[in-house]
Amino acid sequence: MSDAAQNPAFDDPDYRNGVVELLGLLGYGEISACERLAEDATIAPSLRTKVEITRMLTSEFSHFELLHDRLVALGEDPYERMKPYAATFDAFHLKTRPADWLEGLVKAYVFDGLAADFYREIAAFLDADTRQLVLDALSGTGSSEFVVDAVRDAIAEDHTVGGRLALWGRRLMGEALSQAQMVVAERDELSALLVGGDHSPGMDLAAIGRMFTRLTEAHAARMDRLGLAS
Amino acid sequence: MSDAAQNPAFDDPDYRNGVVELLGLLGYGEISACERLAEDATIAPSLRTKVEITRMLTSEFSHFELLHDRLVALGEDPYERMKPYAATFDAFHLKTRPADWLEGLVKAYVFDGLAADFYREIAAFLDADTRQLVLDALSGTGSSEFVVDAVRDAIAEDHTVGGRLALWGRRLMGEALSQAQMVVAERDELSALLVGGDHSPGMDLAAIGRMFTRLTEAHAARMDRLGLAS
Repeated sequence: MSDAAQNPAFDDPDYRNGVVELLGLLGYGEISACERLAEDATIAPSLRTKVEITRMLTSEFSHFELLHDRLVALGEDPYERMKPYAATFDAFHLKTRPADWLEGLVKAYVFDGLAADFYREIAAFLDADTRQLVLDALSGTGSSEFVVDAVRDAIAEDHTVGGRLALWGRRLMGEALSQAQMVVAERDELSALLVGGDHSPGMDLAAIGRMFTRLTEAHAARMDRLGLAS
Repeated sequence: MSDAAQNPAFDDPDYRNGVVELLGLLGYGEISACERLAEDATIAPSLRTKVEITRMLTSEFSHFELLHDRLVALGEDPYERMKPYAATFDAFHLKTRPADWLEGLVKAYVFDGLAADFYREIAAFLDADTRQLVLDALSGTGSSEFVVDAVRDAIAEDHTVGGRLALWGRRLMGEALSQAQMVVAERDELSALLVGGDHSPGMDLAAIGRMFTRLTEAHAARMDRLGLAS
């Protein structure tokens, strides 16, 4: 058995199940992000931006590999563990299909940031081993910083773009929160991880509320950096 | 000035120009391969195969980064140096658009292999520094080995698939050779690199012929590994 599987925190089967669910969720999220970026790359306006987008894609994929490999080390089938989350992410992406290149950029930027924030929040409720994995899986993002210049340039050229993209950003965040609530409602093991058990810390409802407030504030700060009202 | 730029072999401006052309060619080829794989990933029949294809994509992209960074180190604009090859690769991919998932797999496999063989052939005509770069840029392929199982399984299930894919493989190789000849004919600096100059070794026509024979034989061996007649 691998070191990862011998984690003493896994003596609590509920906690172990919660972690496996979480890794499946994050794994599918990364692959789903790769797909979305691959689509964006096909409509990139230049070879240079195509390369920037593909660079973001490879960064997301390296995070996927970490999560995939950990699931394998735990004796789990990574694809089986990711499958329950496919419908959620696919529905989300279907509902937030970018109409053009700029909307694609904003979406990539907003969700890169939101995912990193969520990883950091959830890390607080994990054992040291799993926490390190999750933090490793969020590092190396930030290649999306080129988006800031591209969006600001587009707004400078045409002011109506700012209004349209601001609305788009609000819609993205709304859809993300609604999908997140459905996931928590449907996947008991995952919500148990947030709420905690006998052997793991957790949040009460007020703490979960505060977490969502922090995520929303960080989103507003990102929109501001893009030059967009949130 | 970076170390790469101080390469003594570059005292010969024709040689230096040839290397810059070659890096542009290989760089565009890698990005073009990434695009093709991104399209394949969207039609992958399962999450597992989607991941395998994306893994190939990230491997190609890491090669692209090596070539891109070397062009930058030589004081060149990598995008300007790649641009002259866009039409060739785009035309090639347009003419060999896979009709389905299996054709996409065979195309990825055949061109991964052909590209690696070409890299190895061309490496013999390069100074030590550039040769190492080119060899590094071909290493790490082989993630496409999963294609062998997928194609053989498909043929075992339906024997007509073998005939169709064999024809497809011949068409791919034919188009590749015809595009390669056009590139050599149009890009003088590049063909000068193959033919050699006062300070660099090169091939006569007979040697170029033998190189094409070796590439064709290696292609036949790959088709054989897939269970396809060449």
